[in-house]
Amino acid sequence: MVDLKLNHSVQNGSGFMLIPLDHEEFRRQGHMMIDFLADYYQNIEIYPFHSQVEPDYLPARSNGSIANFLGEMLCTGFNTVGFNWIASPAATELESIVMDWLAKMLKLPSSFHFSGGGGGVIHASTCEAFLCTLTAIREKKLSVIGRENLDKLVVYCSDQTHFSLKKSVQIAGISPENFRPIVTTKSDSFQLCPESLRLAIILDLEAGLVPLYLCCTVGTTSSTAVDPLGPLCDVAKEYGIWVHVDAAYAGGACICPEFRHFLDGVEGANSFSFNAHKWFLTTLDCCCLWVKDPSALTNALSTNPEILNNKATESKQVVDYKDWQMALSRRFRALKLWLVLCSYGITRLRDFVQGHVKLAKHSEWLLAGDKKLGSPSVIPNDEDFNEFNRNLLESINASGGARMVYAVVGGVYVIWLAVGATFFEYRHVNKAFKLVQDHANALLCTYWKH
Amino acid sequence: MVDLKLNHSVQNGSGFMLIPLDHEEFRRQGHMMIDFLADYYQNIEIYPFHSQVEPDYLPARSNGSIANFLGEMLCTGFNTVGFNWIASPAATELESIVMDWLAKMLKLPSSFHFSGGGGGVIHASTCEAFLCTLTAIREKKLSVIGRENLDKLVVYCSDQTHFSLKKSVQIAGISPENFRPIVTTKSDSFQLCPESLRLAIILDLEAGLVPLYLCCTVGTTSSTAVDPLGPLCDVAKEYGIWVHVDAAYAGGACICPEFRHFLDGVEGANSFSFNAHKWFLTTLDCCCLWVKDPSALTNALSTNPEILNNKATESKQVVDYKDWQMALSRRFRALKLWLVLCSYGITRLRDFVQGHVKLAKHSEWLLAGDKKLGSPSVIPNDEDFNEFNRNLLESINASGGARMVYAVVGGVYVIWLAVGATFFEYRHVNKAFKLVQDHANALLCTYWKH
Repeated sequence: MVDLKLNHSVQNGSGFMLIPLDHEEFRRQGHMMIDFLADYYQNIEIYPFHSQVEPDYLPARSNGSIANFLGEMLCTGFNTVGFNWIASPAATELESIVMDWLAKMLKLPSSFHFSGGGGGVIHASTCEAFLCTLTAIREKKLSVIGRENLDKLVVYCSDQTHFSLKKSVQIAGISPENFRPIVTTKSDSFQLCPESLRLAIILDLEAGLVPLYLCCTVGTTSSTAVDPLGPLCDVAKEYGIWVHVDAAYAGGACICPEFRHFLDGVEGANSFSFNAHKWFLTTLDCCCLWVKDPSALTNALSTNPEILNNKATESKQVVDYKDWQMALSRRFRALKLWLVLCSYGITRLRDFVQGHVKLAKHSEWLLAGDKKLGSPSVIPNDEDFNEFNRNLLESINASGGARMVYAVVGGVYVIWLAVGATFFEYRHVNKAFKLVQDHANALLCTYWKH
Repeated sequence: MVDLKLNHSVQNGSGFMLIPLDHEEFRRQGHMMIDFLADYYQNIEIYPFHSQVEPDYLPARSNGSIANFLGEMLCTGFNTVGFNWIASPAATELESIVMDWLAKMLKLPSSFHFSGGGGGVIHASTCEAFLCTLTAIREKKLSVIGRENLDKLVVYCSDQTHFSLKKSVQIAGISPENFRPIVTTKSDSFQLCPESLRLAIILDLEAGLVPLYLCCTVGTTSSTAVDPLGPLCDVAKEYGIWVHVDAAYAGGACICPEFRHFLDGVEGANSFSFNAHKWFLTTLDCCCLWVKDPSALTNALSTNPEILNNKATESKQVVDYKDWQMALSRRFRALKLWLVLCSYGITRLRDFVQGHVKLAKHSEWLLAGDKKLGSPSVIPNDEDFNEFNRNLLESINASGGARMVYAVVGGVYVIWLAVGATFFEYRHVNKAFKLVQDHANALLCTYWKH
């Protein structure tokens, strides 16, 4: 195996800085990986056809120091189709190991670790994580109350929840009428209120419906709200509802001690997911899902046709990931995640997240220091305020100098500056803010002229 | 853009031979791609943030000549998240173009082309293609008969159909009791018989159930059966059933004129899929799905939250692929398929498939030439025959000289030698056959001793 030494962090004005896509380091390592794979193809006939290993062979052997892109190259180069353990013991065991590592980094309770009876799997997307957990509890519930009651099942979330939940609910065959996005308010920081949840559940029960699933979010897309996991799980538990915690973009940040409290209460949930492909230095697709009760997934999703019979599966000592996900075939996604974890380690990954949080705070500081932009009162009334922001965003994006997006939160049109991209630095924030200032000032002039 | 000339085909004893993974060519092109991407990262700030193009900008510009691995490297290197047109016009338009190209290569009727009102999309797996088409027709049907009838919907297929259909039916919330794998027989070459289908439908209607979906297969996994598409579509049409044609591994071969007849009758189907990642020189994941009526998909799968509002979508002139698939985010999979098509062209792709078919015929010829292996009568009775084959397979795989699998077809235990791998040549078939002969002879000796 190639031994790639990493050399892509620098000291700069603001302290230690990880440069995960330094172009010269990328070039050096990329060429080494190409040679590694070319040698592999050249000598492919010397490798055995059949896995020669026993379950649990891998934990004692893992090490390495190369990252995401190289992981994807290996994934493509090997083209492993690891639907079950026997098809690729390495792909299966590496994934289980990496998911336990990550669970430890996030301080997830041991009930989510393989070693504690739970376990993790890498899905393609949060949609898949939603769909599979919805299917798991739907089948469990219907086996008790009868399939004819499928149209009585209810799914809860807040009105800030990502719309992919609604899509997954649709695909799972649950009635769109029984999808309950509960209203949140600015005074509650757009968090889902446990008492509102309880009220919704009681009303549904009175109407003869069956509460099934609750999605709590750590870091909503539009409003960055963090739902209070502990109290929400308490309510859900009373009514036998499956709780999924979706921390799609924010989850990765919880490896930092100062942000871990956002996950407080996750011990009461049934499943938890975050997307390493968002803020964790991996590329699409890499959604990490943990469940406390893998049998809920495998009971609903397993298929064991004759053609896949094998002694490893019969031994019940191995994980067959095809029964933890939607499809049967699966890419060896654990490779890239493993390489990211090995290459950077928890300290550098924390530095990376903390660096972005500093950039976000810097942009907040810039905004607060601008008298005009900091006070909405420069715009005559609320309606004009939204109109102003809409025009401002269009003007900024049309300039080509930056690309920003918007959200409507509590009726207010908000412009977003996302600072989670790998290449982002202070100078980019400064440049983006200058752009906002210039376009806002130009627009304000036209406003006051009218 | 890099200009990579291809140089990986050779003349050999059996004529022209494409070597899609020649290690030295891989090395040369891989290094060029690394430099291309390193230069891209080095100069990333000179590129505009925002797409500057109008819908349909791409058809006039496509060209290139590099293949799958390089496509995956580009896909990872750019990490495009093209859920809708505006997020990545290039990813969207290239996918539409490539799917129309492929539709033409397969001579699919124009009703499956974008230009004919249909269209194609790249999914991760056949499971996803099943699930999305099932969801499409399920929602359409329930909007007519009412959601409370979900447990009455019936899905038909043959007992040879790939088990991923059963899994998709489970996930879609359709009752497992209403999954109808219709029995096939050896005398029918394991094809699904149209009259058996009709009988099953009539029985279900009499029981008050609702026929919904039929899956026909071109090339079943265990028995390589090809269902008679025309007559099956005729029966389905009478009862308003959605017909999906699954040609997972065999579909690619239908670009050859001599195999195209396997798709005869596909014009009566509603959707068609094949996996380019099986026998079409791309790696996981690349399932190509075409539908005649994209609105059936988009009506069931679309989500249009405020945050994704954009003028392109509002114009209704663009494809938003998030509404054609399970998840929202999607990898730029079209790149690798586009590079494969451009690099090899239809002639070389046909040569590639035809080369494998010749290898399969060669192994058939070797088998027929062996008096013992060619006549099952050397084994006392049917039961022993299955037992013999089971022991033979175990002995072959344990030797490490080859990796074969098995299927039970019509009660008979069959050993498979799959010859679709990229590196397969005549010498591998000869070696594998010698291995089978040696192990069979050794095993026969122990049999006759008892």
